[in-house]
This record gives sequence, C-alpha cells and structure tokens, in this order.
Amino acid sequence: MAVFSVFIFLFLGSVGGFSTKWVSCKANPSELCAPPLANALFSTVAFILGALTSTLSGYLGMKIATYANARTTLEARKGVGEAFIVAFRAGSVMGFLLAANGLIVLFIAIVLFKLYYGNDWTGLYESIAGYGLGGSSVALFGRVGGGIYTKAADVGADLVGKVERNIPEDDPRNPAVIADNVGDNVGDIAGMGADLFGSFAESSCAALVVSSISSFGADRDFVAMSFPLLISSAGIVVCLITTIFATDLFVIKSVKEIEPSLKRQLVISTVLMTLAIAAVCYLALPSTFTINVVGHQPKVVKNWKLFFCVGSGLWAGLIIGYTTEYFTSNAYQPVRDVADSCRTGAATNVIFGLALGYKSVIIPVLAIAVAIFLSFSLAAMYGIAVAALGMLSTLATGLAIDAYGPISDNAGGIAEMAGMPHKVRERTDALDAAGNTTAAIGKGFAIGSAALVSLALFGAFVSRAGIAVVDVIQPKEFVGLIVGAMLPYWFSAMTMKSVGKAALAMVEEVRRQFNTIPGLMEGTVKPDYKRCVKISTDASLREMIPPGALVMLTPLIVGTLFGSSTLAGLLAGALVSGVQIAISASNTGGAWDNAKKYIEAGASDHARSLGPKGSDAHKAAVIGDTVGDPLKDTSGPSLNILIKLMAVESLVFAPFFAAHGGIFFKWLNI
Amino acid sequence: MAVFSVFIFLFLGSVGGFSTKWVSCKANPSELCAPPLANALFSTVAFILGALTSTLSGYLGMKIATYANARTTLEARKGVGEAFIVAFRAGSVMGFLLAANGLIVLFIAIVLFKLYYGNDWTGLYESIAGYGLGGSSVALFGRVGGGIYTKAADVGADLVGKVERNIPEDDPRNPAVIADNVGDNVGDIAGMGADLFGSFAESSCAALVVSSISSFGADRDFVAMSFPLLISSAGIVVCLITTIFATDLFVIKSVKEIEPSLKRQLVISTVLMTLAIAAVCYLALPSTFTINVVGHQPKVVKNWKLFFCVGSGLWAGLIIGYTTEYFTSNAYQPVRDVADSCRTGAATNVIFGLALGYKSVIIPVLAIAVAIFLSFSLAAMYGIAVAALGMLSTLATGLAIDAYGPISDNAGGIAEMAGMPHKVRERTDALDAAGNTTAAIGKGFAIGSAALVSLALFGAFVSRAGIAVVDVIQPKEFVGLIVGAMLPYWFSAMTMKSVGKAALAMVEEVRRQFNTIPGLMEGTVKPDYKRCVKISTDASLREMIPPGALVMLTPLIVGTLFGSSTLAGLLAGALVSGVQIAISASNTGGAWDNAKKYIEAGASDHARSLGPKGSDAHKAAVIGDTVGDPLKDTSGPSLNILIKLMAVESLVFAPFFAAHGGIFFKWLNI
Repeated sequence: MAVFSVFIFLFLGSVGGFSTKWVSCKANPSELCAPPLANALFSTVAFILGALTSTLSGYLGMKIATYANARTTLEARKGVGEAFIVAFRAGSVMGFLLAANGLIVLFIAIVLFKLYYGNDWTGLYESIAGYGLGGSSVALFGRVGGGIYTKAADVGADLVGKVERNIPEDDPRNPAVIADNVGDNVGDIAGMGADLFGSFAESSCAALVVSSISSFGADRDFVAMSFPLLISSAGIVVCLITTIFATDLFVIKSVKEIEPSLKRQLVISTVLMTLAIAAVCYLALPSTFTINVVGHQPKVVKNWKLFFCVGSGLWAGLIIGYTTEYFTSNAYQPVRDVADSCRTGAATNVIFGLALGYKSVIIPVLAIAVAIFLSFSLAAMYGIAVAALGMLSTLATGLAIDAYGPISDNAGGIAEMAGMPHKVRERTDALDAAGNTTAAIGKGFAIGSAALVSLALFGAFVSRAGIAVVDVIQPKEFVGLIVGAMLPYWFSAMTMKSVGKAALAMVEEVRRQFNTIPGLMEGTVKPDYKRCVKISTDASLREMIPPGALVMLTPLIVGTLFGSSTLAGLLAGALVSGVQIAISASNTGGAWDNAKKYIEAGASDHARSLGPKGSDAHKAAVIGDTVGDPLKDTSGPSLNILIKLMAVESLVFAPFFAAHGGIFFKWLNI
Repeated sequence: MAVFSVFIFLFLGSVGGFSTKWVSCKANPSELCAPPLANALFSTVAFILGALTSTLSGYLGMKIATYANARTTLEARKGVGEAFIVAFRAGSVMGFLLAANGLIVLFIAIVLFKLYYGNDWTGLYESIAGYGLGGSSVALFGRVGGGIYTKAADVGADLVGKVERNIPEDDPRNPAVIADNVGDNVGDIAGMGADLFGSFAESSCAALVVSSISSFGADRDFVAMSFPLLISSAGIVVCLITTIFATDLFVIKSVKEIEPSLKRQLVISTVLMTLAIAAVCYLALPSTFTINVVGHQPKVVKNWKLFFCVGSGLWAGLIIGYTTEYFTSNAYQPVRDVADSCRTGAATNVIFGLALGYKSVIIPVLAIAVAIFLSFSLAAMYGIAVAALGMLSTLATGLAIDAYGPISDNAGGIAEMAGMPHKVRERTDALDAAGNTTAAIGKGFAIGSAALVSLALFGAFVSRAGIAVVDVIQPKEFVGLIVGAMLPYWFSAMTMKSVGKAALAMVEEVRRQFNTIPGLMEGTVKPDYKRCVKISTDASLREMIPPGALVMLTPLIVGTLFGSSTLAGLLAGALVSGVQIAISASNTGGAWDNAKKYIEAGASDHARSLGPKGSDAHKAAVIGDTVGDPLKDTSGPSLNILIKLMAVESLVFAPFFAAHGGIFFKWLNI
C-alpha cells in the first residue's frame, strides 16, 4: 500500500508538473480548480483511507466471527434455533459494521476534503475515487491471498487427515486443523467482506465522479450529489428492519427451516428496499436534472427514472441469488444430475459439473444485461453506478447470510475439538449445510455487483479520460478487447496453480508431523499447529504476488504504452469475459460440494442408491469437490477483484494516461 | 439446408419487396445495380453451392481416408517409414482436394454470376458471401455432429470394453469398435475439413465483399479483386512443393523422426509462402489503392502493406502451432507437470490440466492480437480478411498433417482387428502418437484462423449494414457484448452434456450385447456393430439440434428484435470470449491425453515412477483423459463454428436487419 501510494502521488502529480497553482476549470473556465499537486495528494490520502477502512472492516469481521463461533457451539447444546440466532446475529453485526463503517468514513472524507476544495467539486470527487482503489487493493489481498490460504489448509488437512490417516474432519490430532479453521475466517469473512466493501466504495465513487461533472455538481446540490450515499444509508435501515424478521418474528425451530428463512430474508429486504428507493428518489433528487456524457449531448433525466435504475440492480441481484441457489443446492435437479453422474465415475462427474457451471451463467448474465440496458438507457453511466448500489443496498443482509456460514463451520470445528456430545456436532453441521448454499448466493451477489461496478467505473474512466467513443471496429480498441478477454484465463491459471503448490507444501508438513511426532496419532501429544498456520500464511502471501502484479500492473503498462483507447477496450474485454468464468467457476464448485453432501446425507432413495460414504460414486464425488475447491473459493471470486481493480485503477490514473499515455503508439506515430 | 435456403431467399428478397427492377446504385447513383430479388436468388444459389462443396469435400475426404487406412496397415508390415509415407500422402491428397475444390467452385461461381451482374460488382460479391455461409453451415454438422459421434463411440467403447471387460482397444469383440473407428473419420476428417473449408470460404468472401466496395471494385480491376483467390492458389503450389520434402527429400527411417518431420513441413511451407505472398502482392496489386471504411475517410493502401497483412496471419499461425505443441506434447515440461500431478490423484490432475489450458491461451491470443493490430492498422478490415487467408494459405499442409492422425489411428485398428503381428500394431501406434500432437496443432490453426475470419466477417457485416461505429459505451452494444461473451458457455454446456448422454446410451448398448449374445466374449460370434453405429449416428444428429439452433437462430433473433448495433456487440463478445474457451479446451484435452500416453509409454525415469498401466497415477491420468475427450474433440473445436457461423450469417442477412431489424427497440421507441 505504501509503495502504491507513492506511485499514485507521483503519477497524478506529474500530470500538471507538480504545480501548486489553482488553474481555471476545464468545464467552466471562469471558475478556479484545485492544482494538480493537491489532486495527487488528496487522491493518495483517499487511497490510504480506503485501504485502512477495508483492513479495519476485515479485522473487526474476523474478531466478531471468532468471538461468535465458540458461543454458537455453546448455544448448540440447547438447540438448532438458539445456535442459529447467535450465528446469524454475529453475521449481522459484521454486515452492519462493514456497511456503516464504509459509509461513514466516505462521508467524513467528503466533508473534510470539501474544506479544501470549496467549489471545485469535480476535483473533490475525482480525488475521492482513490477511496475505491484503496478498498479494492486490500480486497485483492483478502480474496486472492485469503483464497489461497483457506484452500491450501483445507486440501492439505483433508488429503492427509481424512484420506491417508482416516481421522474425522476437525480432529485435533490433525496438525492442519487450526489452519483450516483460520482459513474459513480469512477467506470467507475477511475476503468476502473486503470484496463487497470494495464494490460499495467503488460504485459510490463511480457515481460521485459522474455526477460531479453533471448538473448536481454544477448546481452545487449537495443533497442530490449525496444520492449514492443516501441509497446505501437507506439500505442499512432496511436491513435492520429485515433482521428483526429472522431473529424475532419467525423463530427457527427445526433444521429444515434454516434455508427458507435465509432466503426469505433476501426477499423481504429486496421488497422493503424497493419502497425505500422510491422514497429516496422522491426526497433527495430534483424532479429533472442532467447527466453529462463526454462527446454527446447531456442526458436529461427525471427523478423517477433513477428509481428504475436502482431498482433494476436490486432485483437483478435477487434473480442472480435465486438462480445460484437453483444450480448449487441439492434440493433441485441440476446438482442431483451431477450426483447421479458419479455412478459412472469421476470423469463424468467432472464433465457434468463443468457443463452445469457453464449453463448456470445464462440467467445471471441476462439479468445483468437487462439491468445494464435499463439503467444505461435511462441515465447513462450514472444509471449503471446507482444500479450497482441498488444491488449492494441489501449488503448488510447479504453479508450477514454469508458470514453466518463460516461461523457455523467453525462452531462445528470447536465442538469436535472440544469433544462435545455428538448431537451438538450434528446441529452445527445442519447450520453449516444451509450455509453452503447461502455462501454460493453471496458469491453470486458479489460477482453480479462486481460486473455492474466495473462497468460503472469503466464509464467513469472513459468520462475522466475524455474518451467519447470506444469503437471496437478500430484496431487499438479491438486488440484491447481480445487481450482483455484473455486476462481472466491468465489470472485463473495463476491462482489455481498457486493453490496446488501451497496445498502440496501443507501435505508434506502434515505428513512429516504424523511421521516424526510420537504419540500424535494416539492423541497424547499435541501437533505443531503453528507451523501449518505459518505455511498457509507464507504461501498465501508469496503466491498472491504474481496474480496481484498482473492485476495491478496491466492497466499501468497498457495505459502508459498503448494509451486510453486500448485500455478502454481491455477493460471491456476483461469485464465481459471475467464475469462468465467467475460465475461458472463458483457454481461448478458449489454444485460439486453439494453433490458430495447429497450423497453423504442420503436423504432420498436416489441419494442412498449412490452412497454410502466410501462407495465408488462417493469417491467420484469427493474428486469433484476437491477440483471445485480452488474454483469456487480462489480463482472464481478473485476474478471479481480482477475486473473491479483494473477499472478503478484506470479511473484514478486516467489523467496521467490522458496526458502521458500511449508512448509506444506515439513512438510508432500511429 | 433446404429450409434455410428458403429463409435466405425470403429474408433477403423482402428487403426490396421482391422487386425485379434494376435500381440506381447507392455508391454511384449514375450506375444500375441488380434488383433485390436477384440478390436474394444468387445469395441462395451461392449458399447451396457452398454447402454442396463442403459436403463433397467431407465425403471425398472420408473416402480417401478409408481407402488409405488399410493400405497404411499393409505398408506397416514393411516398416515405419513406408507406412508414414502412405498415411501422409493420403492426408495430402485430402488437403489438396479440399483447398483446390473450394477455390475452383468459388472461382467458377464468380465468373458465372458475373454474366448476370455485369458491372454491379458490389451485388455480385455480396451474393457470393452466401458461399461462406453454406460452407460453414455444413461445418456445423461436421464439427458438432461429428464431435458428438466420435466421442460417444470412443467413450462408450472404452468404458465397457477396456474398463469393464478388460479387452484391448480396437478388439473386434467390442460391439462399439466399428463406430469408434468410423468416428475418427467423421470427427477428425469430415469435421476438421469442413471447419477449415468454411474458414477459407468465409475469409475469401469477407475480403471480396470489402474490396468490391473499394477501389478494386470501383475500378473494375478483376486481377486485384481476385487477390484473395490468388493467395490461396499460391498456397496450393507452395504446399505441393513442401510435400516433396516430406515424401522424397527427407525420408523417415525411425519413429523419432516423425514429429520433427511434420513440424518441419509447417516451417518450410511458412517460409516458402512468405516469398510467394511477396510475389503475388507485387504482381496482382496496383501500387496504391483505397479501401472504403463506412463512416470514415477511405484508407489509402500501398501494395507492400498487404504483404505484411497476409504475412502477419501466416506467421501468427506458425506461432500458434508451436505454442500448441509446447503445451500439448509430452516432450515438454507442462504436460510432464500435469502427469506428475497424477501422483496425488485425479483431482490435482484435473486442476493442473485446467490451469494448463488457461495458461496456454496467453501466447496464441497475443499472436492473434499482434496480427490483428498490424493488418487492421495497415489495411482496415480488408487487412484482417487477407491475414486470415495468410494463416489458411498453408491449409493443404495443415490438413495433410491433421488427416494423417486419424488415418494412422484407423490403420492401428485394422491391424488389431485383422489379427496382424504385434510389431505392425506397434508401428501404427508410433505413427498415431505423433498424430496426437499434430492434431492439436491443427486445432490451434483452426481456432486462430476462425478468430481472424470472424473478425473479417464482422468487419464485412458492419460495412454491409452501414454501421460506422460499434461503441461499447452505448447500452445496445454493451448488452450485446456481454450476452455474446456468454454464448460460448451456453453452447459448450449443451455440447458437453450431449456427449455425456450419447456416451451413456452407447455404454448401455455395449453392455447389453456382452450380456445377451452368447459366445461374444469368446470371439465365436460377431457382435452387432451396426446397432452401435446407428446409436452414434442417431445421437449425433439428434443432439446437435439444440446447439445448432442456438448458433443459427441467435443472429436472426437478435438482429430482427434488437437491430444491427446490438448484433454487432454480440458478435464481438462471442468472438473474444469464444476464442479463449476454444483454445483452452483443446489444449487441456490434448495435454491430458498426452500425459496419460507419457505415463503409459514410460520412456523416462520420471514417467516410469508414475506408471505402469493400472497404477494409481495412471488411473488418475485416465480420468483426466476422459474429461478431456469432449473438451478437445467436441465443445472446443465446435466453438470455431459458433463464432464464424454467427458472423457470416449476420453478413448475409445484413441488408434485412438494416431494413427491418430492431423491431423491439422500434416498438419501445428507443
């Protein structure tokens, strides 16, 4: 972060030759705009603020989760309902913390920056964009590093413990068991939290940048300018009300009620939020305003149109959530087909799983496409940005549902390690199984919002870089498009191999401890847990460097060498290609996981004909699950970061590329 | 084909209300242009011609291959060198036949159409575009249907014969053995041939359409107009000379020389072709000419620039070929790493294989990007079209190398079935192993050329539809882009599941015959081969309908409902996304296949440490190979057809979309 801060300061400062003089504004030459050096400085400060807020949110999220998991185990002695309430409330605390934290820091930063910028709102909000970049950079660590951490520990613990030594999951004799439990928090709590915080920060910044150069900015209408923040604030209130339904109105009594209850939360928050959006649109926005579009006539927008923009994002999110559930829950046909294909072996399981992932892309992409078309047509790039905020407005509920999964998972681990009665473990397992599907829904949301956010950032980037047209029947743009579409593959190849390498190191260490520590298998001596934690930590930090460098350096290199037009093509290509791989990878992995669980649970005649644990079909299902682990928890979700981070970085560095970019083509004189 | 001919005639005829009057030309109102009804009629005729030529080529190719395979078996009694010559010569005959056949029919059609069109060259060459559509439509049957056919037979024969009954490959007691052998011809000979013939026909048509509205057409310079045909003709001569090197100058003496010899053919033909291109550019083209670009100033081009356009495609093809070889041959590290990962089981094998496929995309896409940038910058869309022709100019050599594989494969089958001595089978196996890598190279070429061809067709489409700009920061285009990028996933999901279903039906039939026909396992009674052939045939014809409909109907529906701009975005999205999946699927499959062969052959200490046949690592490798089968032989190569066929169909129907398209948006009044 420190190094990158220097980069930001130097690159942006160089645009105006580090001048400290106020200059006449581009949009309105009669007004004075802040000097380039100030923009560089404030962008850097915003970047650091975003990074710190994201780090703090991740830290607090993990604190809450680790406090709550032991409490969930204890409550599980009383019953499923009690345990559910603790786990879900803890998830809610994290969700609200993250949403509120991100919002308040952003708001304070705007108010403080305004003291310096005064009437130069364009400069103010462009500097604020650094906040999104900071949040997303930390998300890179959380998602990619966290993804490698958790899967290295998981695969390492399973391959030696379950397969070679035949001891149960979460057995305290397994040296990697602590690393595995830590991993759930690192990947699913900190990683997911940082990812969604990044999306929130970026879409807010994208909306602010676009509106600052539109009539809100020109009219100095601070309430209308703050529309994106108001939507998010309303979302927090709506989610607070929604929480009451889960914890107080409909009390969970049996295991079967968990999944419907969590799904109901999504519907309730979506319906309530729709009403809230209408209120905010009516109260905060002037009845008519304009959105500037570079190289085109300003777009005249009526306030009710923004209702449809925000609403389309919100409802697209719900559709994505339900589609994800359909394709990854073993209550429906797709996962059962995959489980059935295990009959003829692992190969058919893998083929059917991949085909399921590919197929699961169709409806989410169409939902995103409709939301994009609607909001784009109604309010240009501003519409896209607020559609993204609409999808993220139920963030607190989404995060609560998502964080609930790893908390229950860890609660089970604690029950096992503490040697508690079998029925406690059974109850936490039931909570965890429901958490698996809801985690997939959370990932669906994360990807959907990432797609909208990247497009909004892309729009803000072309607007800030002064690009009127990204014409893909021009060589520079088309080459950018096809190379951009390749980047998610490159990135996935890196992250998947990283997990493989890190897992191998873990396997060796666990084997070594079992072989060299006497009394370990008998349970008389404790294993060296710390060493396994260290292996996962070191591997995740080391292995995230190449994919991280690919994401961070590509926009800088392409922008500097080939200019803004090629970069714009690249961003569009990476976006449209990355979304598909991310969705298919997540859902394929989720489906394999639940196909395995379906066979293990044996809840129907069909499932029993495939099982029990240890049958050939079950072994084939385990292979699918292991293949799916890096797909659904590392390479898939990391692609969210790829598409968002490249876009927000381009947005922040846009003035530099506009001033000094494309040196290779300038040298070629094209 | 008959139904689609009616579609073409009606859609295109409706553009001018089936008028039979000559009208004043758009480009030059003082001249008369052919009536719309004539354009509709001639487009339909060209379509039928293309379809018939492609069918004929596939038919003759299969005839040659089935004549040659028995002869190869007989020659294998004498030695590897002799057998190689027969197989390679047969492949060459097929390569030359296809290249020459496609060229001569196209040339004759142009000359005959000219009798009617006279001076209306735009109408003439736009009608000729139907030829490309016809060729590609048959390729859909060849690639998709052929791919399903061959893999259903292959997987079905292996799962029951090799795994359950433990009889060797190609054993005549296996009821599916004939279907398996037929499948190699259907998929690899007819499918690959139709695919590459389609590419040739389409890139020629794209070049002709663009140049007919440029100075070649305006000046009625027939020699310059025929530049695309001359490049292809020169390619045939160059490939003839190249063949002499393989069959006469460097005689193969041992197995080790086969793979280098085939690779050398590629280099020789590329170097010779470079010289030939220079000659054709110098002799056929005026020193300066212009290429029209809709909505922009015409591009002034010098003849030496076209040398670089054609050359960039040609050399990009060689780079793609060599990269493919590096990632799929077990002589190099990547495949050995995949083989090594089998040590920890099938799951790591699948993860490493997928990662390898993703990684193998990087260099080919960069090579394609450079070729596109160069040719696009130098001569706009005409440059792209001739770059595609450059890559395809060594088609005869490429097809010879490719067709040689299935011929050797079948020769081995015949040796086994005829009960010939073991050493004959060893020799044909050696030929086949080299054929595996060269088949991957052939697929690399096919995909690379498909990418260039689709872009050229895309260029011709926007030109014919009168679209000046495809601006992806507009809602219609962007929505097209993201939905287009989703289509290859949808298509792959369909084709992969089709193979799974067809293979399952085959497994049941083979099991049934083994269980119900007495004396079959003892070899005293012949199995019912015909039934297995019928199952593969029926399954391939039935299962190709949904993916075929997706490809054929999407451009029609999108163009009609949402208009040319959305369709343009859709084509761009499908192109940039499809190329990546096609390359990664082919290479992943090829790598798994050769990783398995590497362990089986046991030619190094490392390989022996993983083997022998039947070891755990080998079993893991077999699972990878089975997963790879539909990826590399069905879903991957079929994507070539997806991206090309949608583009050429859009080109042919462009006038209809321009006149009547976008009715949904017109109704919405957007």
